[in-house]
Amino acid sequence: MVADPEALAAELADAALGGDRRALARLLTAVENRSSIAEAALRRLYPTAGRAHLVGITGPPGAGKSTLVAALIGEVRKAGRAVAVVAVDPSSPITGGALLGDRVRMQSYAGDRDVFIRSMAARGHAGGLASTTTSAATVLDAAGFDLVLIETVGTGQSEVEVAAAADTTVVLEAPEMGDEVQAIKAGLLEVADLVVVNKGDKPGAQRTAAQLRAMLVPSVGRVPGASDRPQPKRPEVLVTTAATGDGVAELLAALDRHRAVGHAGATSPAARLARAEAQVWTILGERVRARLLTEDRRGETTAVLAEVADHTLDPYAAADRLLEGIAHEGR
Amino acid sequence: MVADPEALAAELADAALGGDRRALARLLTAVENRSSIAEAALRRLYPTAGRAHLVGITGPPGAGKSTLVAALIGEVRKAGRAVAVVAVDPSSPITGGALLGDRVRMQSYAGDRDVFIRSMAARGHAGGLASTTTSAATVLDAAGFDLVLIETVGTGQSEVEVAAAADTTVVLEAPEMGDEVQAIKAGLLEVADLVVVNKGDKPGAQRTAAQLRAMLVPSVGRVPGASDRPQPKRPEVLVTTAATGDGVAELLAALDRHRAVGHAGATSPAARLARAEAQVWTILGERVRARLLTEDRRGETTAVLAEVADHTLDPYAAADRLLEGIAHEGR
Repeated sequence: MVADPEALAAELADAALGGDRRALARLLTAVENRSSIAEAALRRLYPTAGRAHLVGITGPPGAGKSTLVAALIGEVRKAGRAVAVVAVDPSSPITGGALLGDRVRMQSYAGDRDVFIRSMAARGHAGGLASTTTSAATVLDAAGFDLVLIETVGTGQSEVEVAAAADTTVVLEAPEMGDEVQAIKAGLLEVADLVVVNKGDKPGAQRTAAQLRAMLVPSVGRVPGASDRPQPKRPEVLVTTAATGDGVAELLAALDRHRAVGHAGATSPAARLARAEAQVWTILGERVRARLLTEDRRGETTAVLAEVADHTLDPYAAADRLLEGIAHEGR
Repeated sequence: MVADPEALAAELADAALGGDRRALARLLTAVENRSSIAEAALRRLYPTAGRAHLVGITGPPGAGKSTLVAALIGEVRKAGRAVAVVAVDPSSPITGGALLGDRVRMQSYAGDRDVFIRSMAARGHAGGLASTTTSAATVLDAAGFDLVLIETVGTGQSEVEVAAAADTTVVLEAPEMGDEVQAIKAGLLEVADLVVVNKGDKPGAQRTAAQLRAMLVPSVGRVPGASDRPQPKRPEVLVTTAATGDGVAELLAALDRHRAVGHAGATSPAARLARAEAQVWTILGERVRARLLTEDRRGETTAVLAEVADHTLDPYAAADRLLEGIAHEGR
């Protein structure tokens, strides 16, 4: 009934804050599609968000991410807390449906209002995943979930983007993986706040955990941009058997500890500041592009871009020329 | 001996243009590290670039990307053309060294000045891969390579970024892969200009190719931003056996055809225009951030970001406030 995007956004945002799960789902769809109501809704929800613990869970295919997420949901619910899951893994059994056991486990939460599971498409333009995931987490955070789990497959760039959207990043490993995965592991470990060797009942699990502990000599993690300070970082290594629930309570305790240390009395710990920065830079980029593509300017901008495509103008000179146009605009 | 970054950049760029492979390697390192000489060198090289055919090669682990790249190098050299490879797959056997056969094949080009192979770290900030890869390709293009192959593992966001950097994107599949990979496939196919079923000597290869042809009903591909026009796109499906070289000559012919059609008499085909746009937007974002983080402004910018981290200011309002500062600057 509401035609105006601003009014619709306000209505949906207020309904989501009031506990309406259908409104929540519609808002997440708007975020995913970058529809016109997304910005208005996010602005309205933003002041209410900032209370949830955002946890990224990543790892190579076959490490058991979805089974662990299912087990973690159970543990969080035992503690009486509300939990939402954003699965940005396009091949996630949680939403795609490959592993029957996980689906059954998930369905047992179908009637539980304090569990909310949502899949998000991982495809999209470069760098868009972090922004979309952060926005989705903001919506769920505002809606009152204590824990927001962000699950993604970690074999490329996506784990970096998911780590950027999380307060705490858990990297999952399976015991005794091949050489190729070993190589991937190195990249994954860079984003880890906690490392979990899952399938702890398999023979190689404890040995893999010991190897990982040896690899994880204290390194220097970085927060990009204005808050660029080296930070010592040595992820804890845990062993779980998600299928039986072994070690999952310990994982939740470790997550809580990491959050407490991360905050350490400050209102804006490093991960939050880095996330705020990334969001603002993304929106700034969008705003600048929008100004360059208004009806007035579009023709000139397109001509400059065509010169770059033809290699008659270099992209740095082009960017400076376009930016001068905006800076001299003075409005 | 040269201390000034501009002068060093000019010296290295001119040496690379003159065929100095060590200078070329140093420039690629500068691009990878985003060092101070990268921009100056890229600006100097840009007018000379724009002649190479940039080909992205992506696909899931185990599809045989590196073996195919090795076979393709052989075919390109038979045709008397110069070829460079940028392997942005961190687990690539081409550079990492898992498959002995590929390494031996690669080493046979060690004395060939018209073959240049380089690995690039795939890790980094969100969206940075496309920009780094595009810059690396520009350097190799300017240095006179006819074909620049960009190899990456395609299981997440990285294939989108590599596709953004290429004129032609080849997606590799292996026959008879499991369900999980099937799901990944859908995302991969979206970026494909050509689909190659490798390991064509395996039983399921022709059937996989037939299935893929059936899946690939004409869809609508998009070029983002100013050049946003729907384009019909139906990738050709080829079968190769990279290990024996079967079908590799046909693949090179298909690449040449795709390039000819893509150009279609225009000086700036869609992929080039989209790439120019992406580069300019990236640089614009960097310029805007640099202006906000000058000594004068840094304090104010950091305060605004802290408000966002504390959820007392939403990121859209923050971006608008920071942008106003630049727009009113009028310099």
